[in-house]
Amino acid sequence: MNITSDVIKELRDQTGVGLMDCKKALSEAGGNLEKAIDILRKKGLALAAKKASREASEGVIGSYIHMDKIGVLVEVNCETDFVAMTDAFRELVKNIAMHIAASSPAYLKREDVPSDVIDKEKSIYSAQIKDKPLHIVEKIVEGKLEKFYTDTCLMDQVFIKDQEQKKRVKDIVTETVARLGENIIVKRFVRFQLGEKKTIDET
Amino acid sequence: MNITSDVIKELRDQTGVGLMDCKKALSEAGGNLEKAIDILRKKGLALAAKKASREASEGVIGSYIHMDKIGVLVEVNCETDFVAMTDAFRELVKNIAMHIAASSPAYLKREDVPSDVIDKEKSIYSAQIKDKPLHIVEKIVEGKLEKFYTDTCLMDQVFIKDQEQKKRVKDIVTETVARLGENIIVKRFVRFQLGEKKTIDET
Repeated sequence: MNITSDVIKELRDQTGVGLMDCKKALSEAGGNLEKAIDILRKKGLALAAKKASREASEGVIGSYIHMDKIGVLVEVNCETDFVAMTDAFRELVKNIAMHIAASSPAYLKREDVPSDVIDKEKSIYSAQIKDKPLHIVEKIVEGKLEKFYTDTCLMDQVFIKDQEQKKRVKDIVTETVARLGENIIVKRFVRFQLGEKKTIDET
Repeated sequence: MNITSDVIKELRDQTGVGLMDCKKALSEAGGNLEKAIDILRKKGLALAAKKASREASEGVIGSYIHMDKIGVLVEVNCETDFVAMTDAFRELVKNIAMHIAASSPAYLKREDVPSDVIDKEKSIYSAQIKDKPLHIVEKIVEGKLEKFYTDTCLMDQVFIKDQEQKKRVKDIVTETVARLGENIIVKRFVRFQLGEKKTIDET
């Protein structure tokens, strides 16, 4: 059975579910996208898909301060104040704030990386491996760019408290969506480190 | 005795002390700038002047969360970690963070207001009173601009916890400088309100 990366991507886009679960669902479904969605729905993981268009304007502003030297502020939205007050939601917010303090992401999600930054990264990667055939260079650049996203984008970073280092931050969000049955969006964050040069006003 | 606004400004620039104290000192000093500085030094208020060039790179990142719906992060710098750990310094940081949550300043200090914003404000004020003679219009515009600064700039805002509504945020900073004998700088802040349209990335 051949499960293409395109169909995996499509399933992830439609459901917001993590890579491994999508692969498994597609495998169970014999590569059929619709069946795979049903499988994910039955597992309670694909709730995220149905919820994605619903407005998430309630939520919590959370903070985390580490040793008075690092501070994080994060806004996480959900659909109702009821869910915002649940322990599961609050724990998610706390975990994300702690994660940001520890992992210092530069962007919220990969779509937020400016195109000139991506171009610059790509040109550096290409220069490092210029002697290889073009199709190989492209593959390697793609892989390195994926690594760049997982290093710098909050939602793609490996969640610090996951011992097995498999779950990304977006996976713990999706899990909480499935658990609480509401769309959840990490809307924005800011991280201050004492004495760093960066200022709020940099444009 | 004639104390010009120029000499008051000069004294404020050299010492970093508030308007009322500068006026009083100049009055006591018969308008003499050097004597006025001495008077402020004797009162312990002009420490800020001597300290202003010293590096303030220690300090605290403080936060304040109001009802989970408003969050503030603030960096306040001092010169040594010793001072950063004092109760007086920590209380200052807490007070400033609470003040920001309540008063929602748009800028840190008046120098941070972009010139196009100032131009726009001025043109609105002028339009409101265009039938008056020029020198009166100028005076009124100046007064309204001053009001704009005290409304929008953290350091110029009236400190929320001051019952008599006389102290500005910069005054409570200056008081703590005098008390602790170290230069203190409010370096940056950010304020999140749940569901507001503003994002971090607006440029």
